[in-house]
Amino acid sequence: MDDAGLGHLIRAVELGGGERDEVAVEEPLEIRVGGEPLAVTMRTPGHDEELALGFLLGEGLIDRAHDAGPTSDLAGNVVEVEGPLLRDAGARSFYTSSSCGVCGKGALEEVAVHAEPAAPGPVVSRTVLAGLPERLLAAQPGFARTGGLHATGLFDAAAILLTAREDVGRHNAMDKVIGRALLDGRVPLRELVLCVSGRLSFELVQKAAVAGCPILVGVGAPSSLAIALAREQRMTLIGFARGDALNVYAGEERVG
Amino acid sequence: MDDAGLGHLIRAVELGGGERDEVAVEEPLEIRVGGEPLAVTMRTPGHDEELALGFLLGEGLIDRAHDAGPTSDLAGNVVEVEGPLLRDAGARSFYTSSSCGVCGKGALEEVAVHAEPAAPGPVVSRTVLAGLPERLLAAQPGFARTGGLHATGLFDAAAILLTAREDVGRHNAMDKVIGRALLDGRVPLRELVLCVSGRLSFELVQKAAVAGCPILVGVGAPSSLAIALAREQRMTLIGFARGDALNVYAGEERVG
Repeated sequence: MDDAGLGHLIRAVELGGGERDEVAVEEPLEIRVGGEPLAVTMRTPGHDEELALGFLLGEGLIDRAHDAGPTSDLAGNVVEVEGPLLRDAGARSFYTSSSCGVCGKGALEEVAVHAEPAAPGPVVSRTVLAGLPERLLAAQPGFARTGGLHATGLFDAAAILLTAREDVGRHNAMDKVIGRALLDGRVPLRELVLCVSGRLSFELVQKAAVAGCPILVGVGAPSSLAIALAREQRMTLIGFARGDALNVYAGEERVG
Repeated sequence: MDDAGLGHLIRAVELGGGERDEVAVEEPLEIRVGGEPLAVTMRTPGHDEELALGFLLGEGLIDRAHDAGPTSDLAGNVVEVEGPLLRDAGARSFYTSSSCGVCGKGALEEVAVHAEPAAPGPVVSRTVLAGLPERLLAAQPGFARTGGLHATGLFDAAAILLTAREDVGRHNAMDKVIGRALLDGRVPLRELVLCVSGRLSFELVQKAAVAGCPILVGVGAPSSLAIALAREQRMTLIGFARGDALNVYAGEERVG
């Protein structure tokens, strides 16, 4: 991929001694709905409309694509989404990307309100699932250049990559992929597989659950609450997927 | 370290086929100040008082240690901090752990209000700095068992480890270390070095800056905004520190 295509992901910096390095771009994005500020996230620029829509879907604030685009008054770092929302966001929505609600059981119950249990979905072979991170890696040019970007990929059950997005925030990468799917009319993602380049937190399982995705694969380790939520949502959760091996933490019936 | 000492970090889970695995514990923590809920973070239990104090310091809401401890009404997942705060937190504080304020320039200006430029601080040899991640790794028993925990270590200029904390959230690990330092009367951390097990985001530089730490070392890649903030704060920012090599992204004058 040429530099022009990666300019929003990568920035050159001067090191000491005249050396240069390339680093991942991180900038804040304010998400406004109906003209009102709703949330701020530290993200890698690009696909901001997808990010906003994916975020709002994951919060249960929209259930379909809304018109979205940059605003002119704070160029480049504000995305405006057309309302109305399904419910009043309240103060809580502001911090959901680093939290989940209130506490323990309450948080899981709150998710259950937003997300239906996963559909039966596809059965995918262990070999295919274990190979998804490598396929995703081929769509991570920014990571190859900087080492500083997470990624999420959306695959069909035959391991064809439908969408990949890179971002300094792993939650943003997933929001962008899900936002794209929403725009493409693919949500709920009943027959598809999400694969992330890192660890599996509660937050990522929550986003996949709300988008209706039955299978979530990660290169890294899952947390206890990520597993608990995946089991409650009857999803398949796979960690440590690395070419020739994987661990199935939930929903083994979809692993063929 | 025995299992009892790691029980708050690690939980055993059943996989298919009777196998077992150990995963990092992730649970929400509500931080209350003066009885009022202020923020929720997804964290690994343990050292919650340190987490709350480090978080509040990083937000510019306190400048000294406050009494803090668990509350009884939602056992284990609420920490209560004695007020008052330095300023009204407002709605903004709720989401700062995944964002920085408003946008671009505005965000950097907001940090400048909270954090003085870094003190001259120590000069530390390249060899010592590059070796800090390995020393930190020796204090990451939870990571060794799960692969699912980030860590932050606080070192003196002779590479003696003063405090290490592990957490599913890298921002939490740093908050805990800084909270501990606040309780120990070590803030501002003028002569000390912070080392993190992963990537260097804006958020982590911001927390180190507010705590007065002049040198921040990471195993992973820095983001563009992390570098910009470190330079503005006259801090030393080191990425890709891996035993025999490192990159200096800001403040080379402290690297001897």
